[in-house]
Amino acid sequence: MTSNDSLDQLALVLASRKGGDPESSYTARLLHKGPDAFLKKIGEEATELVMACKDAQHGGHTAELKAKIVAETADLWFHSMVALSYYGLGPQDVVAELDKRVGTSGLEEKAARKAQARESQSE
Amino acid sequence: MTSNDSLDQLALVLASRKGGDPESSYTARLLHKGPDAFLKKIGEEATELVMACKDAQHGGHTAELKAKIVAETADLWFHSMVALSYYGLGPQDVVAELDKRVGTSGLEEKAARKAQARESQSE
Amino acid sequence: MTSNDSLDQLALVLASRKGGDPESSYTARLLHKGPDAFLKKIGEEATELVMACKDAQHGGHTAELKAKIVAETADLWFHSMVALSYYGLGPQDVVAELDKRVGTSGLEEKAARKAQARESQSE
Amino acid sequence: MTSNDSLDQLALVLASRKGGDPESSYTARLLHKGPDAFLKKIGEEATELVMACKDAQHGGHTAELKAKIVAETADLWFHSMVALSYYGLGPQDVVAELDKRVGTSGLEEKAARKAQARESQSE
Repeated sequence: MTSNDSLDQLALVLASRKGGDPESSYTARLLHKGPDAFLKKIGEEATELVMACKDAQHGGHTAELKAKIVAETADLWFHSMVALSYYGLGPQDVVAELDKRVGTSGLEEKAARKAQARESQSE
Repeated sequence: MTSNDSLDQLALVLASRKGGDPESSYTARLLHKGPDAFLKKIGEEATELVMACKDAQHGGHTAELKAKIVAETADLWFHSMVALSYYGLGPQDVVAELDKRVGTSGLEEKAARKAQARESQSE
Repeated sequence: MTSNDSLDQLALVLASRKGGDPESSYTARLLHKGPDAFLKKIGEEATELVMACKDAQHGGHTAELKAKIVAETADLWFHSMVALSYYGLGPQDVVAELDKRVGTSGLEEKAARKAQARESQSE
Repeated sequence: MTSNDSLDQLALVLASRKGGDPESSYTARLLHKGPDAFLKKIGEEATELVMACKDAQHGGHTAELKAKIVAETADLWFHSMVALSYYGLGPQDVVAELDKRVGTSGLEEKAARKAQARESQSE
């Protein structure tokens, strides 16, 4: 099974939980509670990913610390996929967006232009 | 090209920028500056995703507001992939972790156990 | 000048910038751009405070690392005061809320009840 | 009692909980668990403040929505004061830092110079 299949399968499972009994699963409960429940988790998991990376920065790139980074990224991606699912979106939309940015002229150029546009907006 | 190919291709591009001239690309610059540069972006992009979802919650699930959610998720995943790359990891590690949680007994159960363990740790 | 005077004076300065020329000051620019501009900074500065604390955790509680924590907290409080100002609120409202939680029976009990209520809401 | 007194009193309460029985209070428990416990809360509360402000932006500046903003800011300041306490710092350090930035030439100029320095560092 490819990574793509995995993300798509996960998206299907998430979609199947919409409108389901909140008592039946963690995902059904998040979707039932609505945006604040899963958005709060996105903020929390992003912070936990940052902390895990700082631990690896200072503690050495050990297998254990790297596994923590993977686990926190999985938590972050999982909860952002719950958000996507809530709004009728899926990982394929995100991947298509990333694809557009890679394009022919290289990812970094597109990403840089976007980032610079944002920076100048925020000044 | 499948979505899987896209994420893996993006990971290859990111990996190729490690040690590159910081002036040559946005990614090379982030990797050269080190963790604080891309970790700060993870916190910022997570917040922007939360804001985009709140706009869709209140403003209706229009195509424009949904496109914003996709763009912000792409920003968040992009910068978390830069972090993964910095520590010698990739999206396939995250997908494998998500796969493990889906497993045979269903994703929600695994995710719920993890979430409950975390909740009780944090009390 | 007491600390109280300082926070109140800062709040007065922030309030005076509402509706001012966006070119005239950083605060006027943030308030003119509206919520997304300063909310994004709150997410970013919170992340930077987390990073500064992780550096102190791993690098020792040196004067330099502690000064970084103070500077990041100041950034976070400053931008949350900009948010308060935008909505016609001020630091005295926050302090009054903290006061209520301290109350007669002790801060921890009130904070704990709130925290536990939130935890159980989020399960 | 001035706002300053309130913040200082809160800081004294927090300081008195260092090394205390983790079962005795929420604060003692956070300090006992160490940085990850309260840093995670800073990320979470910052996200909740952002969400409360977005609700007020879209839902009108009602008393209820403004009270939510105040409550979330109090949560954020409370947990950042726990962090300060852990590192032997207090609100007076943050207020002194904010004071320095106000100085004689006006807060915005100092804040703008800092912000611009940060922006250019992050480009």
